[in-house]
Amino acid sequence: MHAARRGAPRPMAHWQRWEELDPATPAAPGWESRPAPAIYAVAGAHPLADAAASLALHRQTETVEAAFAAIEPVLTRLAPLHFDRDYPEQARNALRGIGLDFPPEAFGAHIMAPMDMRFLHARCVIGTFCRLIGENFDRGAAERMDGESAATVIARWGFHAIDITPCADGRLAGVLDYILRIPPSVVAFRKSYAGALFNVTESLRHWETVELRRWREAQPNAASAPTRFLKIGVYHFSSVDPGHEGCAAHGSDTARAAGALLERLQDFAYAVRNVHGAAANAAILLVGVDTDTDAIRVHVPDATGAMRIDRFADSLSLYEQTRHLSRDAAKEAIRDAVAACAGVSSGDTATEGMRWFCGYLLKNNIAQVDAVRTQQGGRYKEAGHTERLIVVGDAVDEVQMRNLGFQAQMETVEEGGTDLDTGIAIFRKVHDRQGLAVPVLVHFRYDPRLPRAAERAAFKARRLMAAIIARHAALASRKKLFVQAVLREAGGRGMTILDPAPEALAMLESQP
Amino acid sequence: MHAARRGAPRPMAHWQRWEELDPATPAAPGWESRPAPAIYAVAGAHPLADAAASLALHRQTETVEAAFAAIEPVLTRLAPLHFDRDYPEQARNALRGIGLDFPPEAFGAHIMAPMDMRFLHARCVIGTFCRLIGENFDRGAAERMDGESAATVIARWGFHAIDITPCADGRLAGVLDYILRIPPSVVAFRKSYAGALFNVTESLRHWETVELRRWREAQPNAASAPTRFLKIGVYHFSSVDPGHEGCAAHGSDTARAAGALLERLQDFAYAVRNVHGAAANAAILLVGVDTDTDAIRVHVPDATGAMRIDRFADSLSLYEQTRHLSRDAAKEAIRDAVAACAGVSSGDTATEGMRWFCGYLLKNNIAQVDAVRTQQGGRYKEAGHTERLIVVGDAVDEVQMRNLGFQAQMETVEEGGTDLDTGIAIFRKVHDRQGLAVPVLVHFRYDPRLPRAAERAAFKARRLMAAIIARHAALASRKKLFVQAVLREAGGRGMTILDPAPEALAMLESQP
Repeated sequence: MHAARRGAPRPMAHWQRWEELDPATPAAPGWESRPAPAIYAVAGAHPLADAAASLALHRQTETVEAAFAAIEPVLTRLAPLHFDRDYPEQARNALRGIGLDFPPEAFGAHIMAPMDMRFLHARCVIGTFCRLIGENFDRGAAERMDGESAATVIARWGFHAIDITPCADGRLAGVLDYILRIPPSVVAFRKSYAGALFNVTESLRHWETVELRRWREAQPNAASAPTRFLKIGVYHFSSVDPGHEGCAAHGSDTARAAGALLERLQDFAYAVRNVHGAAANAAILLVGVDTDTDAIRVHVPDATGAMRIDRFADSLSLYEQTRHLSRDAAKEAIRDAVAACAGVSSGDTATEGMRWFCGYLLKNNIAQVDAVRTQQGGRYKEAGHTERLIVVGDAVDEVQMRNLGFQAQMETVEEGGTDLDTGIAIFRKVHDRQGLAVPVLVHFRYDPRLPRAAERAAFKARRLMAAIIARHAALASRKKLFVQAVLREAGGRGMTILDPAPEALAMLESQP
Repeated sequence: MHAARRGAPRPMAHWQRWEELDPATPAAPGWESRPAPAIYAVAGAHPLADAAASLALHRQTETVEAAFAAIEPVLTRLAPLHFDRDYPEQARNALRGIGLDFPPEAFGAHIMAPMDMRFLHARCVIGTFCRLIGENFDRGAAERMDGESAATVIARWGFHAIDITPCADGRLAGVLDYILRIPPSVVAFRKSYAGALFNVTESLRHWETVELRRWREAQPNAASAPTRFLKIGVYHFSSVDPGHEGCAAHGSDTARAAGALLERLQDFAYAVRNVHGAAANAAILLVGVDTDTDAIRVHVPDATGAMRIDRFADSLSLYEQTRHLSRDAAKEAIRDAVAACAGVSSGDTATEGMRWFCGYLLKNNIAQVDAVRTQQGGRYKEAGHTERLIVVGDAVDEVQMRNLGFQAQMETVEEGGTDLDTGIAIFRKVHDRQGLAVPVLVHFRYDPRLPRAAERAAFKARRLMAAIIARHAALASRKKLFVQAVLREAGGRGMTILDPAPEALAMLESQP
């Protein structure tokens, strides 16, 4: 199972001395020059390395990996016991030991209908993911920027809300917290789609939602403030194996992935202006991620706002260019590179806000490039997919980690079917050879301010579960697909787990 | 076919003398007292009868009926010719004669694959419906109310936009123009669903769309104006056969239909207040239609805004009560009945706007009750369904007529499937015994201000067509279901007709 591919998790004790560091405070001066033994290091000597943030993220990765790694040993121990009279009780207790509290029905076994370990495994994966959501990992590290809130700083750069669409690919499952290190408070929307190909009409609606709140409640700022809505599109590519490990939705063709997304971003900006007038000028930004190194390409807009797929500032080059500089000189070098990419002087005021934002992303990402170098030797050993599960429905951002999950936002399989199929195709390559079922989590949030919202979300979740099973009926009938749903109250902690309705499951039995 | 059920259309010459009346001017004084021969009469002697409007509507009905009635004779004539060498040309010319211009592919016939008359008939029905949309029937008669625009009057009554949700049932296909006689200019949204059970989240979005426009463009009025968004829900019942000819989605149970819709309306009003604060107070109104007489029940809200399913003002009773009064006295009687229903004095200012609006609906509807009495002897001969086609996707309101079409708004079959199934079940009862295919029109509008909007609409339409065929594959494979799509530019005249993609049709062949 997964753990085997990654080796046993390192014992926590190794990290003892790092725990003395307060992750909320920056590294002590002179810190970067102290050579750290490779086994301990979570950040290297780069002036823009962020030891505290990288440590916190590394700890989160360790926690997430350890949680999933704990599943296999328990199941291996339980498997031979499953005809014992007290098996359900033993199993329940054993799984409680790894934080999973399943209903007794999950352990039904009979000599003619033995325990389905494949489904139990998938149930454990989804259960673990849901438990990790509930852990409330600290995502606030990036919130304070030089003593000001991120929202204040972002507004000073000319933006009042960020809408970000990455590809659904699991290697971008850490895009907000690890790769771009953008604090949640400024991210109004994050929705993922295969190939990052978002729906223009829906994004326009996001713009309208934000705009109405500015008019009615002056939140996050008044509509009269001269700030813009910023839509970021994130495509990806593989520097190690560009022809195979790039974006599946674009045939692993980097230029096609970047080009299609740029066109979509331009369509969105045009739509906002055209529907809501020249004053409604949304900003757009194209970013590419190298999934082997987590480095980014920021396609800095020029003075007219135009971007080109072959014109970008690249964090990997900047990492090299700035590694021997002082922190301030490194930041200056980034600013110069961004201005050069935009084709303006570094004093140009019209483009200043966007350029500061691009520099901010590059600086943040250099810390991640540094972490990958220090922790992974510069590139991830596994260039491809090792996602644990597929998440469909509403976005989950509370737990982030490269290759955690393939995540595609959808309301129905009818609109999201191609994305779902892409995810399942990826999974079959990973999970089939291990005999595992593909765990699919249908995730919906509901707004408790709307009457009967929980009821409607449950209906929607059951409908989506049934549609997934119907679309992949052959797979489901061979017990290679396991679907569950979780409903969460927006802003609340509680979650309700739903299994597919018996009718949806009955169709598995009726498969030829 | 249909025409047979209704008898041959009356020759237009019978209406000659009515054409002297200008439909835009009210009937001459004294008109109501002149006894009209039954065959000529489109309006009776009721003081609130509206001869001009009823004449215009009757003419529209005649045009629509005649257009559909013209199909059968042409097909009957063509059928024996379809192995003739020049059949395609003959057929094309014959159909051009009834305003239908089909591509040559529509007439492919071969001795081993004879012309499919069932599909050709369905194609003619859909083509005729689309042609009638293009006729641009005058819907402006109700726009001028005592010399003021409808929007001005409605705003004075305290409303800035009307969102109306009727049941998808075809007997409500004339609800705006015939039954309620509400001018299009004040109807911001009209979407139909089986049982009128609209989606609260989507209606909330309608509210937000209207509200943003008020803030940004002061359209239809400024956000500071103390007017409200009005959501009307329309259920229906049958006075002739309440247990069978009521709302199929509610098991023909009037109390259930009214109760479920009232609850949905209350949920909507609560959601708006709860999400957007007490100042965002949407008005709601429940209306019931007797599909046998077109009479309405208006569930006038009381002083607290509350409605009850057993408390309403009924246009049929009011028709009787006011038929011997003067026009002004009749209006006064309606106002008194509305106030009594609201439980307030007729001078109560807090409820005045809503009461005026309810009175307006009742007065308008009395004119329709009068037209049904005069033209149909008080109740329609056919209590049940005689819809010509099913329309799914975006709303079509340009052509209205009782039993014209079953119309359910949806983006996907996954969400709209139950509505679609209701429509198809109704149709099979009507069309199967005549050997006809159910004609389903997928109708989407697109906003040309959004780039590539036409392309996306075409994609959505093809997806929906394929999903309809997949859901009703057994029916489709027996050629009992015919699906086409039409795309229309919002605000534009042009329309593009799409047939299902060959892949969708190929599945018909592969059916067992």
